[in-house]
Amino acid sequence: MKYPPVHYHDYLGLNPLLNAQHPKSTEYGKPAHDELLFIIVHQTYELWFKQILFELDSVLSTFQKPTVAESEMGIASARLERIVSILKLIIGQVDVLETMTPLDFLDFRDMLYPASGFQSYQWRLIETKLGLRIGDRLAYNQSPFYKSLSESQQGEMLNIMNQPSLHDSVEKWLERTPFLQGENFNFWDSYKEAVNKMFQDDITTVKNNPRLPDEEKAKTVAGLEQTLKSFDALFNEDAFNKLRAEGQFRLSYKAMHAALLIQLHRDQPILQTPFRIIRALLDIDETMTTWRYRHALMAMRMLGQKIGTGGSSGHKYLADATAKHKIFGDFFNLTTFFIPRSQVPPLPKAIADRMSFHY
Amino acid sequence: MKYPPVHYHDYLGLNPLLNAQHPKSTEYGKPAHDELLFIIVHQTYELWFKQILFELDSVLSTFQKPTVAESEMGIASARLERIVSILKLIIGQVDVLETMTPLDFLDFRDMLYPASGFQSYQWRLIETKLGLRIGDRLAYNQSPFYKSLSESQQGEMLNIMNQPSLHDSVEKWLERTPFLQGENFNFWDSYKEAVNKMFQDDITTVKNNPRLPDEEKAKTVAGLEQTLKSFDALFNEDAFNKLRAEGQFRLSYKAMHAALLIQLHRDQPILQTPFRIIRALLDIDETMTTWRYRHALMAMRMLGQKIGTGGSSGHKYLADATAKHKIFGDFFNLTTFFIPRSQVPPLPKAIADRMSFHY
Amino acid sequence: MKYPPVHYHDYLGLNPLLNAQHPKSTEYGKPAHDELLFIIVHQTYELWFKQILFELDSVLSTFQKPTVAESEMGIASARLERIVSILKLIIGQVDVLETMTPLDFLDFRDMLYPASGFQSYQWRLIETKLGLRIGDRLAYNQSPFYKSLSESQQGEMLNIMNQPSLHDSVEKWLERTPFLQGENFNFWDSYKEAVNKMFQDDITTVKNNPRLPDEEKAKTVAGLEQTLKSFDALFNEDAFNKLRAEGQFRLSYKAMHAALLIQLHRDQPILQTPFRIIRALLDIDETMTTWRYRHALMAMRMLGQKIGTGGSSGHKYLADATAKHKIFGDFFNLTTFFIPRSQVPPLPKAIADRMSFHY
Amino acid sequence: MKYPPVHYHDYLGLNPLLNAQHPKSTEYGKPAHDELLFIIVHQTYELWFKQILFELDSVLSTFQKPTVAESEMGIASARLERIVSILKLIIGQVDVLETMTPLDFLDFRDMLYPASGFQSYQWRLIETKLGLRIGDRLAYNQSPFYKSLSESQQGEMLNIMNQPSLHDSVEKWLERTPFLQGENFNFWDSYKEAVNKMFQDDITTVKNNPRLPDEEKAKTVAGLEQTLKSFDALFNEDAFNKLRAEGQFRLSYKAMHAALLIQLHRDQPILQTPFRIIRALLDIDETMTTWRYRHALMAMRMLGQKIGTGGSSGHKYLADATAKHKIFGDFFNLTTFFIPRSQVPPLPKAIADRMSFHY
Repeated sequence: MKYPPVHYHDYLGLNPLLNAQHPKSTEYGKPAHDELLFIIVHQTYELWFKQILFELDSVLSTFQKPTVAESEMGIASARLERIVSILKLIIGQVDVLETMTPLDFLDFRDMLYPASGFQSYQWRLIETKLGLRIGDRLAYNQSPFYKSLSESQQGEMLNIMNQPSLHDSVEKWLERTPFLQGENFNFWDSYKEAVNKMFQDDITTVKNNPRLPDEEKAKTVAGLEQTLKSFDALFNEDAFNKLRAEGQFRLSYKAMHAALLIQLHRDQPILQTPFRIIRALLDIDETMTTWRYRHALMAMRMLGQKIGTGGSSGHKYLADATAKHKIFGDFFNLTTFFIPRSQVPPLPKAIADRMSFHY
Repeated sequence: MKYPPVHYHDYLGLNPLLNAQHPKSTEYGKPAHDELLFIIVHQTYELWFKQILFELDSVLSTFQKPTVAESEMGIASARLERIVSILKLIIGQVDVLETMTPLDFLDFRDMLYPASGFQSYQWRLIETKLGLRIGDRLAYNQSPFYKSLSESQQGEMLNIMNQPSLHDSVEKWLERTPFLQGENFNFWDSYKEAVNKMFQDDITTVKNNPRLPDEEKAKTVAGLEQTLKSFDALFNEDAFNKLRAEGQFRLSYKAMHAALLIQLHRDQPILQTPFRIIRALLDIDETMTTWRYRHALMAMRMLGQKIGTGGSSGHKYLADATAKHKIFGDFFNLTTFFIPRSQVPPLPKAIADRMSFHY
Repeated sequence: MKYPPVHYHDYLGLNPLLNAQHPKSTEYGKPAHDELLFIIVHQTYELWFKQILFELDSVLSTFQKPTVAESEMGIASARLERIVSILKLIIGQVDVLETMTPLDFLDFRDMLYPASGFQSYQWRLIETKLGLRIGDRLAYNQSPFYKSLSESQQGEMLNIMNQPSLHDSVEKWLERTPFLQGENFNFWDSYKEAVNKMFQDDITTVKNNPRLPDEEKAKTVAGLEQTLKSFDALFNEDAFNKLRAEGQFRLSYKAMHAALLIQLHRDQPILQTPFRIIRALLDIDETMTTWRYRHALMAMRMLGQKIGTGGSSGHKYLADATAKHKIFGDFFNLTTFFIPRSQVPPLPKAIADRMSFHY
Repeated sequence: MKYPPVHYHDYLGLNPLLNAQHPKSTEYGKPAHDELLFIIVHQTYELWFKQILFELDSVLSTFQKPTVAESEMGIASARLERIVSILKLIIGQVDVLETMTPLDFLDFRDMLYPASGFQSYQWRLIETKLGLRIGDRLAYNQSPFYKSLSESQQGEMLNIMNQPSLHDSVEKWLERTPFLQGENFNFWDSYKEAVNKMFQDDITTVKNNPRLPDEEKAKTVAGLEQTLKSFDALFNEDAFNKLRAEGQFRLSYKAMHAALLIQLHRDQPILQTPFRIIRALLDIDETMTTWRYRHALMAMRMLGQKIGTGGSSGHKYLADATAKHKIFGDFFNLTTFFIPRSQVPPLPKAIADRMSFHY
């Protein structure tokens, strides 16, 4: 009534969509049955990439605001979780692609040269907008990754590379986390104290253990002291910044502290949604890695030691990129600095109160 | 070298593909964030439907040949299994669609009227080509299903409805199965004998059981005789055809026998691939049913008791169609007539030999 | 150091665990290869059921407290989501079980009589603790469901049936939702007004549409008035309670209102986690239904029209139970009463403020 | 009737099964909610490992017969495919385990020392029986992998390590493949000729290309000659054995040829099932690798840079083992030696006939 009637076929643009498959093998007069599957698998990937970018842009614009309203956090978290859901789905598409055997692929593989997944502009955009920097990327054929893109795409990409990524924006948002320090409470001091106490207790236990030979004692104590020392990075801004300059950390000192606060006190009402956001970012990183890895395995199966379409070193490149292209690595490493909940200093009541609702 | 170079972006037709999303809510100036997801989920469905149809057409053309070369059977089986693999994937897409909540859907639902999944020409084609007949379909809004299609699609559909479906072609292929009867062996007679013997043994066991009260004995014997009688449909062509006319069976008497032979002796080399083909057809039916069912649940969640887009009774229609739109139902019911392998009459050596290789 | 050393094998109790498989076919001297798979599929189901019950008990005890601390809500939500995750996993187990063909099952099926999945105490417990009442259950073999359980289990089950279920506790928790009415705001009145306005606007639009024939106008207006009338259930406690007595609703009037408030204003900080809890309950209901449905399909495939192990009517029972055994049906139906977000009355600033944090 | 009645609860051994969970945190008086999940995830893994071993033993005993009956090949193929199906399922279990956060794990992690997945006897058995040799394994804590097992398990393991693995048995079976050479046909000679012709044609095309600069020509020709040379390994038994001694191949020269014949002519009736077997072995290798990889990612997320339970280097070990513990690597690399189907020499009619049925 309110709107003109619409037919499913037109609404979904099925004419352009279902006429966008043009197998090269048919064009060259040697139809290869499996080329359509190859095309459609990659087309559905690209449609999903468009959706991921759409969600990502929306989350980016939320996080790039000077302050993020609490009411928008639930939405941002849901959209990040939707991206995870899409990534899990497309990992499953590898199963479908693998119904094509290597011999079937050979029927049309030469016709696609040098087309290659490395030329996927949208995938590169996803990585870049999430925060993969050019220096984080594995070099590919000795030239920067964007050289595989078309010229107009290269321009856009360079532009986007200069804008704040989700990693950057999340870092700024973390830095603004309240409660890191306040009137009568400094999260960091109390955490440091707890860590020290925990390790000193352990050391005392070892030293007082009558059944432990002296040599064993010394070794264990040395190990504990070594681990305690590794926490220095967290307690000393200069030490941290030194390691950060070496590439061991990417997040700022303050953002790391905020992320740790959120992880350790995630049950406080005000931290529940921030915790979900960090978890979703971890999930995105992990599912993207898994997707790359399954593609690396598939490439090896499909090509053996042969080079990939596009002249890439195929499997090798993918396998290496899998490990290297991590974006939110600090969130993975953060767990190194967790201590058991029973040792975590409780929040002062006044602070806990302010982290909750009052109606 | 041999072929002109091709870029990923052009090869995949990404220009038309990634420009085929036109949210109505944007057109009407009230952008609803989740409409893009709604469009892309359905577009990827339709791309996969195109792929399923492509595989189906190829299998259809194989089975429509006067005789199907054994060397083509492996290919047909692999392509049917690929369809199963695609159907399993798109069942997973429901998880992604369900990240859209009912309230999000309401933001643009009215704008789509009367567009509806019922208008998917390709899904109807898949059902029709597999063998779903108009009489098997649940009536929908009191008019035949094809009335929801565009006019040109209606013409094509009516044409295809008059051509042999995969069900028809598989039936003919089954009827041509050798070994159903031969010089010194009639599969059917020997199976009938085995069934009779098995039931008579059971009846004797019951009658001779001293611990069983007479009343219980009579009841159990009556039950066994009843089940034995149900096998009559299989042993008596007239009885079978009567039930078939009533709609209890769809396959011909001969095709049913062949399907049973294949199931019971699937390990014989010559029957291994036919067995896989029957299994793939069962899998296709079952996964299509599961897909419909998950959509029915999703519709209920999305719409409650409200009518679906397109004015369908939504959930109710989908749930009912789920149960009714079965195509290879005879293969499901065939198991009713299985007897334990230990009771199945062994194949005469001469027959078994001819079912194997000789090199 | 702090604790005695432990070996993986002992920690996991692998001795009892890996010695708990006793195929009947082996016992009876007719080893059937696939019986082990049948046993292990069901054993892993039961292990997962134990885990689901453990999470459920924990969530139950949270919701049964007189007031639920906000800080516990995130935990409850995560545990419900874990249950969903487990249910999705075990739906996938059907794929593994279906690698056993009906003929393989026949090799040992008779030996299991009358063992049956209907005797799974833990599954029944899950249903009961979630809130499936005996009157909601499909009658099975003319006796109450718990008669299939062992005697001691029957006693426990009857006891648990008399304790508050998760449905009951969630209802109480919903009823305590603040903000339903307050000083200068009554959620319900303002919502009612919005619904009325929306429908009156629609009716006016129709009446003023010059291109619409009178007959069509009358019909459309009647339809709109009918739908508007269906909202009465929501606006009139007596009307609601009448329908509730007839079984159309299960939740109380007040709990329904709270659930609607949560759904419509889920982005308010204080409602974000409650929204996730309702969504997880919907997901649990939906995945349990899907699990039952896939089992119904598998039973049909495995047994045809034959009765299930345990003498159940197998497929038929499962298919019917699938539809009937819904627990949080009101949450599904609630969407019927949603109106587009653009029409939802905005919260007064004072209310919105109190739904947020203040630090 | 025929067999004593049996109850579901007893049949499945639910008493020992559901009483085999003993959280250490409960034992030590500090119950950690998530420990039960940790236990049950690993217990279900172990139950599935038992099932995989059962299928594997059955397939092993088939392949260890002096000749494998064709009728048993379908069964072997189905059982290997079942293993793939189980492995895909348990990859999904990682999603469930990851609902436990690192902080939850810390609540009981210290109590499990030194228990670790590295002590899983059954997983080691699966790897060993498939054919992973001690030399293929990544060293772990400087001692052979079996040192993590209990003493009696070490004895059994050493015994099994000395028995033929599935890799060994499949190799022998491949070596017996008929058709590799016969009266008027030598598969290998004709394939070699086709490879040579294909490369010479390519070289001629390049040389005659008037638009190609001389430098480019020389480079391309050199590349083609290099690739052609890499086929030498396949055509020259001495060259092959040299590379094999260096560890580049594991299968014998004859077995490699047979595997290539099967891959290239998989549509011939007699090769359809062997092809499925090779594919299932590839799938097993790939899914085991994927499972290890997902565990490596999870370990990194759970532990950061901390060492794993059991003192392993956790993530690092798993990630490295993922890449190294490949068993049927030759089947992956075989594709390097494929040529497009259009260039594969057709089988002489007499040979093709003998690869088919005659009834």
